Amino acid sequence: MALQTFSYDQLFRFTFEMLMKIGCPEADAKIGAEVLLSADLRGVDSHGVARLSGYVRLWEKGRINPKPQMKVVYETPSTAVVDGDSGLGLVVAPFAMQVAIEKAKNVGTGWVSVKNSNHYGIAGYHAMMALQHDMIGISLTNASPLVAPTFSRERLLGTNPISVAIPANEEPAFVADMATTTAANGKLEILQRKGQDTPSGWVQDKTGNPTVSANGVKDGGALLPLGGDREHGSHKGYALGSIVDIFSAVLSGANYGPWVPPFVAFLDPLPNLVGEGIGHFFGAMRVDAFRPADEFKSHMDNWIRRFRSAETTPGNEKVIIPGDPERELETIRMKEGIPLLDPVVQDLTALGEKFGVRF
Amino acid sequence: MALQTFSYDQLFRFTFEMLMKIGCPEADAKIGAEVLLSADLRGVDSHGVARLSGYVRLWEKGRINPKPQMKVVYETPSTAVVDGDSGLGLVVAPFAMQVAIEKAKNVGTGWVSVKNSNHYGIAGYHAMMALQHDMIGISLTNASPLVAPTFSRERLLGTNPISVAIPANEEPAFVADMATTTAANGKLEILQRKGQDTPSGWVQDKTGNPTVSANGVKDGGALLPLGGDREHGSHKGYALGSIVDIFSAVLSGANYGPWVPPFVAFLDPLPNLVGEGIGHFFGAMRVDAFRPADEFKSHMDNWIRRFRSAETTPGNEKVIIPGDPERELETIRMKEGIPLLDPVVQDLTALGEKFGVRF
Repeated sequence: MALQTFSYDQLFRFTFEMLMKIGCPEADAKIGAEVLLSADLRGVDSHGVARLSGYVRLWEKGRINPKPQMKVVYETPSTAVVDGDSGLGLVVAPFAMQVAIEKAKNVGTGWVSVKNSNHYGIAGYHAMMALQHDMIGISLTNASPLVAPTFSRERLLGTNPISVAIPANEEPAFVADMATTTAANGKLEILQRKGQDTPSGWVQDKTGNPTVSANGVKDGGALLPLGGDREHGSHKGYALGSIVDIFSAVLSGANYGPWVPPFVAFLDPLPNLVGEGIGHFFGAMRVDAFRPADEFKSHMDNWIRRFRSAETTPGNEKVIIPGDPERELETIRMKEGIPLLDPVVQDLTALGEKFGVRF
Repeated sequence: MALQTFSYDQLFRFTFEMLMKIGCPEADAKIGAEVLLSADLRGVDSHGVARLSGYVRLWEKGRINPKPQMKVVYETPSTAVVDGDSGLGLVVAPFAMQVAIEKAKNVGTGWVSVKNSNHYGIAGYHAMMALQHDMIGISLTNASPLVAPTFSRERLLGTNPISVAIPANEEPAFVADMATTTAANGKLEILQRKGQDTPSGWVQDKTGNPTVSANGVKDGGALLPLGGDREHGSHKGYALGSIVDIFSAVLSGANYGPWVPPFVAFLDPLPNLVGEGIGHFFGAMRVDAFRPADEFKSHMDNWIRRFRSAETTPGNEKVIIPGDPERELETIRMKEGIPLLDPVVQDLTALGEKFGVRF
């Protein structure tokens, strides 16, 4: 499928202007565009500008409030619950992470659970906000139910990502950012476009049997938790996705499990919701709440160097530190531009025409 | 292989008396026996009394201090570092978890990283200490290097478990307790005894190629991170194991990665260690630091019931909530006794004879 390449600035300006068009205040439009584009830069294309028209359709349905009054509604010295007031998750999440960081400045760590939010984009952006403060950042979110727990025929969890960002000194930070499923939905879409099957352990069909069809989820099946099946540890991926769901939504009062409102605007939320919007969870830990920051960071350098220089398995050049591939791609795409698939370009062009913003 | 069954009280008394023999104070011997036996009750047989002679051998080598002066050596209102003074991990871990719980009482959450400790037994015991306080408990530890990161031929990580315990109201608590590998070492030992192969994705051989030999690790290979290989998400299991290692040891000043001292006494620690002993990490979060506890716990009941009653995949009776199988086994074994394999019985008998304690 054909690709066209756009500069970061082009895509940033378009996204910023679109968010202004739907009524976001300037500061919110700026941060929202930055979060969305961060996914494109880091190669998480499914969470970047390709999603912009999806957010706009949710706004058209009245499910996103462009001018949210985000606020802390419950707190202790190290914790808070933030009510996102149905705002864009792209804007609510950095607000909540900032609350966690301020709490960590005061008492060593800060932990914030969020309700009444929407899809927050790339998990890693929010976790990485902690790095400049010499803090470890943690970012979790629940999401539309597409994943079947081990032994379940029903979709009860989202791909519920976990991101953890850990600062080092001379080495770049350790940044894990991963769905708690064997493969994220974006990888299925790539295989669908190519007409290829999936590896085993990614998907089950609507009867609950394993399948290698890349259309398995679209046809009523489900993504599988990390591990794939019981014999390969899927009960562990299921437990991790559940912990993300509970921290994000049962702690805050958001919707959890099958009640999480779908991201796609053509599906309505279930009746009798158990909470408000979708939920996130953020953590910030000052490394000098445990030991002097320079000591910690120089041991992180040592950790990273030891792992990166390990002897490799046949056919592989080096051991990768979490965050390496995304950081390398970010440098390349910032310089050489961001490639978008034709259908995404057409979608954004149509969106721009509808709202009078030139793409 | 033949099994003999022993009552909880028999095994508790023997373990308690053995720990007194190696010089533990009475209170420490009691808690140490309780932690060790908790693994036998919950079916994590590899972490129960079968390990007792291993701890004793470490003591004989001077690597376990039976009378540790455990103390907080660094702290903020929500964090602490505990120096375990080379004590039994079975004793150091509950001490450190209690520090986390006290901090959570004061400021909402408590986070404790531990250095200079030893193997702490079953991760779930320590996480579950939080439940009676209406807190969420978190327990992580690093361990002897047996696991190869994705693309690494070398063993650089332990099976580094994650345990998270979450209280409910009428339903029993949600208790996840899992190695961050596809399968824990104990499962390999079972297959070795049966002379059976492993499923794919559990083990690689010493050349770094996949193998299904249950002796693969013993023969110089390695356990594989959850996911098994790159295509099935092993980079995620590797990232999780790494996060556990860093929180447990780089935050506290313990040994990390390949420097973690081996549990088996016949292997010496590496020269030029990067820290002190092995490391753990504990968290305690008051649920009422986020919302009223009764609200949280009744939503947890609802979460658990919805998942447990989900429609199942073919051939499976119900969806399991993390902690269900261990709790059910605990009830059975408390009543009917704990089965031990003959080699374990012989080992404990010999241990008792050596120290003048009747098994």
